[in-house]
Amino acid sequence: MDFSAYLQRYQSELTDNVIPFWENHCIDHKYGGYFTMLDRDGSVYDTEKYMWMQWRIVYMFATLSMTEYRKDNFIDIAKQGFDFLTRFGKSEDGTYYFALNQRGEPSVAPYNIFSDCFAAMGAAALYRADGGEIYRREAESAMNNYIRRMDNPKGRWEKNLPGRKKRLSLGHYIILANLGNVMKENLNTDQFDEDTDRAIKTVMKKFYNPDLNILFENVNVDGSFDLESCDGRMINPGHGLESMWFVLQYAEKHNDRELIDQAANIIKKLLEFGIDKTYGGIYYFMDALQKPHLELQWDMKLWWPHNEALIATLYAYRLTGDEYFLQKFIEIDQYSFAHFKDPDYPEWFAYLNRRGEATHMLKGGKWKTFFHLPRALFVCAEQMKQLL
Amino acid sequence: MDFSAYLQRYQSELTDNVIPFWENHCIDHKYGGYFTMLDRDGSVYDTEKYMWMQWRIVYMFATLSMTEYRKDNFIDIAKQGFDFLTRFGKSEDGTYYFALNQRGEPSVAPYNIFSDCFAAMGAAALYRADGGEIYRREAESAMNNYIRRMDNPKGRWEKNLPGRKKRLSLGHYIILANLGNVMKENLNTDQFDEDTDRAIKTVMKKFYNPDLNILFENVNVDGSFDLESCDGRMINPGHGLESMWFVLQYAEKHNDRELIDQAANIIKKLLEFGIDKTYGGIYYFMDALQKPHLELQWDMKLWWPHNEALIATLYAYRLTGDEYFLQKFIEIDQYSFAHFKDPDYPEWFAYLNRRGEATHMLKGGKWKTFFHLPRALFVCAEQMKQLL
Repeated sequence: MDFSAYLQRYQSELTDNVIPFWENHCIDHKYGGYFTMLDRDGSVYDTEKYMWMQWRIVYMFATLSMTEYRKDNFIDIAKQGFDFLTRFGKSEDGTYYFALNQRGEPSVAPYNIFSDCFAAMGAAALYRADGGEIYRREAESAMNNYIRRMDNPKGRWEKNLPGRKKRLSLGHYIILANLGNVMKENLNTDQFDEDTDRAIKTVMKKFYNPDLNILFENVNVDGSFDLESCDGRMINPGHGLESMWFVLQYAEKHNDRELIDQAANIIKKLLEFGIDKTYGGIYYFMDALQKPHLELQWDMKLWWPHNEALIATLYAYRLTGDEYFLQKFIEIDQYSFAHFKDPDYPEWFAYLNRRGEATHMLKGGKWKTFFHLPRALFVCAEQMKQLL
Repeated sequence: MDFSAYLQRYQSELTDNVIPFWENHCIDHKYGGYFTMLDRDGSVYDTEKYMWMQWRIVYMFATLSMTEYRKDNFIDIAKQGFDFLTRFGKSEDGTYYFALNQRGEPSVAPYNIFSDCFAAMGAAALYRADGGEIYRREAESAMNNYIRRMDNPKGRWEKNLPGRKKRLSLGHYIILANLGNVMKENLNTDQFDEDTDRAIKTVMKKFYNPDLNILFENVNVDGSFDLESCDGRMINPGHGLESMWFVLQYAEKHNDRELIDQAANIIKKLLEFGIDKTYGGIYYFMDALQKPHLELQWDMKLWWPHNEALIATLYAYRLTGDEYFLQKFIEIDQYSFAHFKDPDYPEWFAYLNRRGEATHMLKGGKWKTFFHLPRALFVCAEQMKQLL
C-alpha cells in the first residue's frame, strides 16, 4: 500500500479547501471572536458565539501554526479569539459561559464543563506557538476548573435528582485523557499525568463491557451496566472511535502493547456494530440491545464520527499492522469523500440522512466548527507520513 | 362528500387499535402510574415516568370515559395515575417534577411548566368524569401554578442570560388558550376566561407575521421578529396547525367569523409552507427564510404534526366550507394511514424519515404517549358527525 496519493489528497483538502473556508469566513472583524454558523457559501446565518466552537478554532489555528501547513496569519487568528474569549467569556468563578452574543455579552450560563476543556486546549496550543505566559496561565486555570468540576459537571444547573441513578459519562473521562495529553505536549509538563492515567484506566475498565464486547457511553458509578434504560444502553460509535485513538496515542507513548491490542479490539467491535451494512457510513446513536432509540436522528450520518473513524482506523493499522484496519480506513475514506465533501463549495457537509444524502447545506453550526475535519486531515496525514 | 366511511374508520382505529394498545400495555400494576416507553409489540424498553406523558394518559382516559367510546375501566385507569402522580409527583412548592423513576422517586427536577399544564388538564377531565372535589382542587392548583410560572418558566434552571434577547414562545401562549378551554369545559368555570382571551390575542397579534404570512415559534417581547437568528426564524408547522385549531375552537364558541377566517388563512399558509412537495408529509422544523436549521431532524415526519393537521383541516373545512381544506384533509389522511399506521401491530409509528419510512419501531416514548393520536381520532370523528 502506497500512501502517497492519499497523503497528497489529505494535505490538499486541508490547505486548499478547509483552512481557506474558515480563514475567509469565520473571523468577526467588528467585535472579535468567530462566526461559526456558516452556510454553504460561507455566509453567516446566526451570530451567536458558542464557547466550544470558539475555543476549538483557537486550538486548531494555533496548532496548525506550528506545522508545515502554517501561514503567518494563523497565530493572529488564534490570538484575536483568545483575547475576545478571555475578556468576555468568563463568569464570576472563572469558568466559561456556554455562549456569548456577537458583542460578547453572556447569553448562556456556564453550565457545561466542556467550555473549560476547550479553553484549556486552545490556550495550551497558543502557549506552545507563542510562548506568552498569559497563555500558559489560562491553560492551567481552565484545566484545573475542568478537573474541579468533574464530580458535579452541571453544578446548579443539574436537573437530575436522586431518583435517577448517578452515571459516569464516557465523554468526561476520555476528554480528560485527551486534555492531559494536550497539556503535556504543549505546556511540557507532567503535572496532569496522574489524571491522564486515571482517565485511561477508567475508560478501559468501566466503560468497556466485555460480555457484549462494546464500549458504552454511560455506566453506573460502580462500573456495572444498566441494560434496563435507554441511557444505560446507549452506544455512540463515533465517540467510541474517538476515545480509542486517544487511547492508542497514550499507549504508543507508554509503549503498552497490551493496551494497544485492547483498544484495537474495541475499534473493531465499534466498526462492526456501528457501520450501516445497507447504505454504508456510521450510525450516530445506537442501542446496545437493538431496542428503540429515543433520539430521532439516531440513523443519520454525521461528519465527525467519520473523521474520528479515519483517524482510529489508520492509527490502529499503523500500530498493529492488521490489514482489517487498512481496509476499513479505505472504506470510510471512500464514503466520506463521496458523501461529505461538497462538490461545489469548500468544506464538508455536516449531516447526511441514512442513505448518505446531505440534509443540511450548512458548513458550520452550533456543533460544527474548525475542528474535527482539519484535525482528522492533519492527524491522518501524520500517520501516512509514518507509514510511508 | 360522504364522511360515513371516514367516521367508521376513525372510530374503529380509536377503539379497536389505539385504545386497546394502551389499555393492555401502559399500566404499571406494581408501582402505579404508567409505562410509556413501549416498543412495537407493547413491551417496555424503559421505565422512567415523564410527567407530560403520564398526565396526558390521565387526561385522555378520563376524557374518553365521558364519550360513546367509554369502557368501565377507563375512569379507574385515569384515577390510579392521578393517585400515583399526586402522591409522588409534586415538588416542595407544589409544582410537578419533570420525571419520576418507576417507583415514584423524583428523577428530574421541576424545571418545565408543561408538567403543571398537563396535570391541570388531567385533573380537570377527571373532575368532570367523577365529580370528586379532590380533582377540581388539583386542576385549579396546577392551572394557577402554570399561570404563575409563565413569566419565568424555567425558574432557577434558566440558562439564558441577558445577552440573549428575551423571547415569547408560542407554546406557552397557545397552551394557555387550550388550557383555559379545558378548564371551562370540565370545571364549568369562567375564572380563566380572561387568560384565555389574552392568550388568543397574543398568538394572533404577536406570533403571526403578516409580511411573511406565517406563524412564528419565537418572537421578541415587543412583538417584532428576529430574522437574524435561528430561533427567531423557526417555524414548526405542526405546532402552528395545532395552535390554529385551538383558535378555531375558541372562535366558534365566540361566533367570531373574522377570527375564523384569520386562523383558516394561517392554516393554509402553514400547509403550503410545511408540506414536502417531493415526498409528501409535513416537515418537523423549518426556517422562515430557508436558511439552515440547527436541528438535525428538521426534515423528519412525526406522527403528531399529522394528527394536528387532520384536526386543523377538518375543523377549518367545517367552519369555512372551503374545499381546499377538505382536499388537504384527504391528502393528510391518506399519507398518515399509509405511512404512520403499522400494518402488523396496533398503534402508529412515531418517526419517519423524509421519504416516509419508519426510522423507529417504538409506539410510545419520552415524547409519545396516549394523547395526540387518540385526540385526533376522537376530535375528527366529532367533526365528521357534525359534517354528516
